[in-house]
Amino acid sequence: MTKEFDGRRRVVIEEIKPLVDGGRFPVKRIVGDDVRVTAAIFGDGHDHVAGRLLYRHEDVDRWSTAPMRHVNNDVWEGYFIPDRMGRWLFRVEGWVDHFDTWWHQLEKRLSAQQSSVSDDSLESGALTRAATMDESRKEIPLALLTGANLLHTIATEVKGSDAAELRAVATQLRHLAEQKREHYENPVTDAIKALVERNPDLRYVSQSDDFPIRVDRERARFSSWYEFFPRSLGPEDQHGTLKDAAELIPSIAKAGFDVIYLPPIHPIGRVFRKGKNNTVTAEPDDVGSPWAIGNEHGGHMSIAPELGGFSDFDKMVKVASQSGVEIALDIAFQCSPDHPWVRSHPEWFLIRPDGSIQYAENPPKKYQDIYPLNFESTDWRALWEELFNVFSFWIKRGVKIFRVDNPHTKAFPFWEWCIARIKHVHPEVLFLSEAFTRPHVMYGLAKRGFSQSYTYFTWRNTKQELEDYMTELISEPVCEFFRPNFWPNTPDILPAILQTGLRSAFAQRAILAATLSANYGIYGPAYELLEYQPLREKSEEYASSEKYEMRFWDRSREDSLFPLLQLLNEARQSHSCLQRNDSLRFHSTDNPQLICYSKSTKSDVILVIVNLDVNNTQSGWTDIQLQAIGVASDRPYSCKDLLTSAIYEWYGPRNYIRLDPNMPAHIFHIDCSEQVQDEARV
Amino acid sequence: MTKEFDGRRRVVIEEIKPLVDGGRFPVKRIVGDDVRVTAAIFGDGHDHVAGRLLYRHEDVDRWSTAPMRHVNNDVWEGYFIPDRMGRWLFRVEGWVDHFDTWWHQLEKRLSAQQSSVSDDSLESGALTRAATMDESRKEIPLALLTGANLLHTIATEVKGSDAAELRAVATQLRHLAEQKREHYENPVTDAIKALVERNPDLRYVSQSDDFPIRVDRERARFSSWYEFFPRSLGPEDQHGTLKDAAELIPSIAKAGFDVIYLPPIHPIGRVFRKGKNNTVTAEPDDVGSPWAIGNEHGGHMSIAPELGGFSDFDKMVKVASQSGVEIALDIAFQCSPDHPWVRSHPEWFLIRPDGSIQYAENPPKKYQDIYPLNFESTDWRALWEELFNVFSFWIKRGVKIFRVDNPHTKAFPFWEWCIARIKHVHPEVLFLSEAFTRPHVMYGLAKRGFSQSYTYFTWRNTKQELEDYMTELISEPVCEFFRPNFWPNTPDILPAILQTGLRSAFAQRAILAATLSANYGIYGPAYELLEYQPLREKSEEYASSEKYEMRFWDRSREDSLFPLLQLLNEARQSHSCLQRNDSLRFHSTDNPQLICYSKSTKSDVILVIVNLDVNNTQSGWTDIQLQAIGVASDRPYSCKDLLTSAIYEWYGPRNYIRLDPNMPAHIFHIDCSEQVQDEARV
Repeated sequence: MTKEFDGRRRVVIEEIKPLVDGGRFPVKRIVGDDVRVTAAIFGDGHDHVAGRLLYRHEDVDRWSTAPMRHVNNDVWEGYFIPDRMGRWLFRVEGWVDHFDTWWHQLEKRLSAQQSSVSDDSLESGALTRAATMDESRKEIPLALLTGANLLHTIATEVKGSDAAELRAVATQLRHLAEQKREHYENPVTDAIKALVERNPDLRYVSQSDDFPIRVDRERARFSSWYEFFPRSLGPEDQHGTLKDAAELIPSIAKAGFDVIYLPPIHPIGRVFRKGKNNTVTAEPDDVGSPWAIGNEHGGHMSIAPELGGFSDFDKMVKVASQSGVEIALDIAFQCSPDHPWVRSHPEWFLIRPDGSIQYAENPPKKYQDIYPLNFESTDWRALWEELFNVFSFWIKRGVKIFRVDNPHTKAFPFWEWCIARIKHVHPEVLFLSEAFTRPHVMYGLAKRGFSQSYTYFTWRNTKQELEDYMTELISEPVCEFFRPNFWPNTPDILPAILQTGLRSAFAQRAILAATLSANYGIYGPAYELLEYQPLREKSEEYASSEKYEMRFWDRSREDSLFPLLQLLNEARQSHSCLQRNDSLRFHSTDNPQLICYSKSTKSDVILVIVNLDVNNTQSGWTDIQLQAIGVASDRPYSCKDLLTSAIYEWYGPRNYIRLDPNMPAHIFHIDCSEQVQDEARV
Repeated sequence: MTKEFDGRRRVVIEEIKPLVDGGRFPVKRIVGDDVRVTAAIFGDGHDHVAGRLLYRHEDVDRWSTAPMRHVNNDVWEGYFIPDRMGRWLFRVEGWVDHFDTWWHQLEKRLSAQQSSVSDDSLESGALTRAATMDESRKEIPLALLTGANLLHTIATEVKGSDAAELRAVATQLRHLAEQKREHYENPVTDAIKALVERNPDLRYVSQSDDFPIRVDRERARFSSWYEFFPRSLGPEDQHGTLKDAAELIPSIAKAGFDVIYLPPIHPIGRVFRKGKNNTVTAEPDDVGSPWAIGNEHGGHMSIAPELGGFSDFDKMVKVASQSGVEIALDIAFQCSPDHPWVRSHPEWFLIRPDGSIQYAENPPKKYQDIYPLNFESTDWRALWEELFNVFSFWIKRGVKIFRVDNPHTKAFPFWEWCIARIKHVHPEVLFLSEAFTRPHVMYGLAKRGFSQSYTYFTWRNTKQELEDYMTELISEPVCEFFRPNFWPNTPDILPAILQTGLRSAFAQRAILAATLSANYGIYGPAYELLEYQPLREKSEEYASSEKYEMRFWDRSREDSLFPLLQLLNEARQSHSCLQRNDSLRFHSTDNPQLICYSKSTKSDVILVIVNLDVNNTQSGWTDIQLQAIGVASDRPYSCKDLLTSAIYEWYGPRNYIRLDPNMPAHIFHIDCSEQVQDEARV
């Protein structure tokens, strides 16, 4: 099928969805998704048109096809299910369906054999009684011949037994035409229609461009992250190791987390090393920031000796795998002044007029422990290759998920190239973008390949803020390329609401993250132990931040939030509607401190109500759009709270809610089965 | 500037507006318009970016440039004014502005010379007092050298005196750096900034694609059409001629119409000619339908002898021109069976199996007087050429506006090719699309080049319908490519509301058309003489339609609506806000039968209130968004009714309205000058 200009390609194809920036970037989907493609397909005049959807994995040359059907107002839809990971392509085709036009016209002629002439047709100057008689004597035989010719034409493009069958039908129609009957029955059987439908008349087919879809594995859409610093896992005052991490992992996995994310594990720079609480001078025993990467032991492809060696790493990866979780590594493309690249490739950095290397700065602030890479290096190709090699190195050691540090300070074209190149060979690899910056920049990174992204959730507290933000994220075009990952905290961000130190705040934010977003994560030990002291007033930095020192976490503390996190993960695992965001719907309440939302599948409804007031009990009435979530409004329904196991019998949209800060939410599983039984009894 | 891949092109350009279908089709504008282009322009990291707009007429090789400025949230805007008709192109460029980044950083360093060290900068591990002292001793000289190097680099790409000047500034900075002063003043003058701004550092510039704009003359946006059948202009019972048309034109022009639109003037087919009221058998003296084109006297490039000859035509065009109006011809690409093409080019039609040519039909209805052209003809190229020749033929005779009959029954690719080819040589030629069909099809034709389009206005009667439809038309993306032309009636359509025969209905619909849409038209004699009899109940066909017979119109009748039309045209000519649709705004009233809307410029406000009830007086209160139209809400304002010359003193948003069917509307010109005087007095 060539695309050279032929004025006879009369069908227009436009408004194709889903596309990101008109097809410039791939839409994101998961293996097994039902990919719905719509397009406006129309032609001139009154001829019928038809459309179909072509799709293929990029490794497969041959297109598969799926029929498209008319939905409404010239918009057509078709579906396909990508059955493996990777880059897929789809295309829409449309053509004038002469056969369909023909048999519809033939049927009208055939019915006109019986019908009397209406005034209406007389008025239009079209028909007389004599003309009606003509239908069978002349027009129908002519139409049959037209059909025969058309089938014959179609047959010339067809191979195999269908070609013979098409010719046979053509002959049969010709034969009928010759009989010049007084009255004709309809010769176009469903079998004939099916025969032509599978051999469409594509002589003048119009084709859209080919558009990309990035198909990931399930974890891209549904994941529960737990972050910790291995160096804090040792017995008190001893440096923790990857061995300690391997020991901790099974318990984290048992609590339902499936991604263990470690801050950078590389050798930490010594030159201008930061001390505790980010002070500029380090004491001799200060461990430094893991994000100041590189010293005499190596850089991005080495492990800090104090954490262990590669065999420890491999064992940790194995334990994780056996526990059903994955290790996510933090990739931070920046160097400490003693990183090996500084000597081997000074041209990858910005050189100042005095020959020194430019450190990071925001004048007058200086970050002399960090050398940024210069993406305008004349040697940018080699730099790109080496950064690509970093990912490849860890992929070979079994890492399939990367949390990328500040990707918005590296060139956009690099990410697009690097991620595509990696995923071409390793489509299972996932990238989380740690960019807390302006919307265009965050979305721009997601478009260029990041599988998941950190979000503004960390600072969205009010009902209006949460509803507005989630609505933006689940709406087109954002939902097509941006997968949010909701974090209530990170080592960099202790948001104001958590600085209250209130358990209600920590519980509330975890519940919101875990139920609003199918991907969520926490910086775990600090979170479950309600760490809330900022470095100083109005700062979001933790006091005694683990970024600059080892901490000892007593995870066995009675007040730990860990059991709640486990409950949340159980709910997420048992209810597939919580594993995606597309069914999210907000419901009204009469209290601005009570947010209410649902996620649902056909068979499963989860309804969440959260008290956003961390200090006070709040009560009010819901107004649930029951019909929209498939709950009958004229029968009681049973709500089981997945947090407390309490069961409530509710009826209709309006129900009373009272939530105190001790347990600031209901996560209701609505059981409709009793409703169905009721119905059966009625 | 080549576009080969360079990873150092770090700036992203996206969300460019205005575009139609991502740039697939041109946006439409008028000569002298201020074309506003916006785009998201952003880069990685903290470097400053800059953007500019490039634009050119397609006949001009060199791009002109306009600066872009940051509006909000990474969106930038720039403007240009196309100063001639034709196809224009624009492009957006973005780049990292190293100079801008540099001098902002330098300014911060310079201010740090004075300032004490804050706790904040201490905390961030960035600065000590000693470091501050460093600023002048070391950092500032280094920064000055960095700037010198940058200016030197920029100079290498620059020609002329600016290059020397850039080098001079570089030398001066270097000189300063060598002085290693205790304290530095800011050396970056506005002159230096301006020098670099006009010589931007485009080494790694990112460029968008080039996007098209179709620039038309003013009449594409603002026109008042009057349609009549020349053959009805004769003395009673005599066939009217183009000479009669030429006599009528000055009076139509005097009433403010500027486009005189004539149904086809070609020879009318004799075979299967339709009789009066569209009957299938014509009497010998029946004149036939002008849309059944072609007989032994010729086809689309001939004039029906009964109307006159080419000299009559030329005289008519000349009279029109002298009267300040234009002739619009109707181009209907279909043939009567005796059209010359039927014999010379049977391959341009669909041949049936019996060798006969396929006439138009919608089984069982037959339209044997019309042969459609076959756009799937093997000879489609020659067919396209000949159709193009038809337009060219009449353009050479002075016709610059065409009303195209049923363009949606001819192939879309043909229109795109034909209109572009004509407008390439004759950008002044305008095309009105007469497609009353589904939205995608109507919009699809507009995208492919039609300058104006008939609309659904003819059937939009209620307040909600009118507000919804106008809102769609003036919103993106429709407003970028679709220019509505509002017709209350056509020879094909006598809508139900006019079948009431009520003068109030005719007045109301003309007022709505002329004030809602900058382009409007009427099928004149039938309209101004309140012709209202349908062919039969529920039909929109006129009884005794002029399409099939000559009519005599007594345009001097006392009850003629012509004086109202003249008033409407005067209002449209005197108030430029009525000459475009973009300022249209609807205002609330408390009566669903009263619609209220404004069009305004900075200096001119027109407020229209129409009683949509054709039978009864309606009254109610307005709720006008005064601030939005620039009227002070705390001072009285004077409303002069352009229909009655009555003057009303109004105050605030709520004012009482009472409209009886005899004069069912106010068209208020709001005079704010007294408000200003008031203000001066206060």
